[in-house]
Amino acid sequence: MPLLVVGSVALDSVKTPTDSRDDVLGGSAVYFSYAASYFTSVRLVGVVGDDWPPEHTQLLQDRKIDTQGLEVVEGAKTFRWTGRYEPNMNDRETLEVHLNVFGEFNPQLPEEYRHCQFLFLANGSPKVQMQVLDQCPGARLTVADTMDLWIREEHDALMALLQRVDGLVLNDSEAKLLTGDENLVRAGRKVREMGPKFVVIKKGEHGAIFFSEHETYVMPAYPTPDVIDPTGAGDSFAGGMMGHLAEQGNFEPKTLKEALAYGTLVASFNVEDFSLERMKRIERADLEERMETYRRMLNF
Amino acid sequence: MPLLVVGSVALDSVKTPTDSRDDVLGGSAVYFSYAASYFTSVRLVGVVGDDWPPEHTQLLQDRKIDTQGLEVVEGAKTFRWTGRYEPNMNDRETLEVHLNVFGEFNPQLPEEYRHCQFLFLANGSPKVQMQVLDQCPGARLTVADTMDLWIREEHDALMALLQRVDGLVLNDSEAKLLTGDENLVRAGRKVREMGPKFVVIKKGEHGAIFFSEHETYVMPAYPTPDVIDPTGAGDSFAGGMMGHLAEQGNFEPKTLKEALAYGTLVASFNVEDFSLERMKRIERADLEERMETYRRMLNF
Repeated sequence: MPLLVVGSVALDSVKTPTDSRDDVLGGSAVYFSYAASYFTSVRLVGVVGDDWPPEHTQLLQDRKIDTQGLEVVEGAKTFRWTGRYEPNMNDRETLEVHLNVFGEFNPQLPEEYRHCQFLFLANGSPKVQMQVLDQCPGARLTVADTMDLWIREEHDALMALLQRVDGLVLNDSEAKLLTGDENLVRAGRKVREMGPKFVVIKKGEHGAIFFSEHETYVMPAYPTPDVIDPTGAGDSFAGGMMGHLAEQGNFEPKTLKEALAYGTLVASFNVEDFSLERMKRIERADLEERMETYRRMLNF
Repeated sequence: MPLLVVGSVALDSVKTPTDSRDDVLGGSAVYFSYAASYFTSVRLVGVVGDDWPPEHTQLLQDRKIDTQGLEVVEGAKTFRWTGRYEPNMNDRETLEVHLNVFGEFNPQLPEEYRHCQFLFLANGSPKVQMQVLDQCPGARLTVADTMDLWIREEHDALMALLQRVDGLVLNDSEAKLLTGDENLVRAGRKVREMGPKFVVIKKGEHGAIFFSEHETYVMPAYPTPDVIDPTGAGDSFAGGMMGHLAEQGNFEPKTLKEALAYGTLVASFNVEDFSLERMKRIERADLEERMETYRRMLNF
């Protein structure tokens, strides 16, 4: 099944304790699309300015990602983010954000995109996410991401969105902020009670926790010694997860659990280099190989 | 197989964001013994003052823990620790430490203890841990715990100890401190290169990572919504782990992995109330029931 993603497309500048990159390919919808492309065909909706290097579009198209929905606005600039990681590589500080053309993002889905059955609303304002939902009335599975900014500043719109999506992925600090509960197990359950059928809390290097009505389980992160740049880990996690669900064409409990594992593994590759560099060097077979190791690791 | 543990026996005062307890039963060897007692017979070596309530000894004896090695020093006071937990219940601040009689701890093992084949050196000075090792020349499996104080102040003695023990358990911040490496996978491998055949890094609410020459794997913590008091979680983890190894009488890779799972589960119960209160209310069958859930959780 094709998978539709709507979200940010960015040029990132990233500083780690030992290295840095300027103006590299990034953005939630980009990481998501690339990660999902190992599993299924992807349709990307986003917006960039005329400073956008066309080779980035080409890179996505080479992975058979449909970029028909990537709008290029003349006379405008692409969203830029600059961040610096702490030595632990899990915490980071945002140094600069220039929303630029993404600040006015008003996604209009191409007609054929509107029949997509698997939809991911990558990080963005819940109002914009809701507009996208309205354009896809027939979607079978809708999952959203969110972040602290929207929890703080667009709380009501976010609560309305949660009534309409099937799933929500968010990170641990966001779950605590949204619920006011410091215990992640309780926090996850409280988020689920806000509307979504399932919730995934991402814990960075510590993995993820899944919550549905009948299940709560933990997926540890794959233990990689080579963490170079964690940017996009959460988005590539979501991409691997949704990619597997769309590939399987269902979201049964068993499929969801496998999907979380695939998300975990794509993310573990993604952090092993800057931008999309590591993902560019792997194939589906590399994911399957790491999956074998991961299954063995969790089996006793 | 009987299991020998040498370590602290304490009276703890604990403040959490919502509750507190004063002068309750605690100490590394106590949590360890109680946790291990679900699996095997335990011999405890420690020291207390004449302020030690005899009912605490009785409680241990009721679990068939051999307290012959628990020395009561007249005219001296028991080790006391006071700590306060942050709202996240993972970080804590030590408010007061009175080593008292534990400061002069010079463990002399009863003759029949010296033939114990499974030995755990709970938190204590590496010099004292080494003295215990010297008294157990025939031990088949020796595992030690350590902490930041010894890494900083008795580094050489600790490095000498690491050459002689089979295993080391320590927490994530201690592993980073000992190796100077912020990546836990690399840090664990570096600790192993300091001597022990295997290393277990405890990550609190995020579980544990295991390292041997041929294996690296992660065990997530059991996701409990009821974290009341995390004191003793690491010691009860080690107790469950070593208890299972001693019960099985071997430390093959398969047994070690199961042992980490049992440690994870005993610790998950331990944090559900103050002091040993939660462990006092469970039986082996409760551990096995949670084990079933845990196995199912990790299986996909």
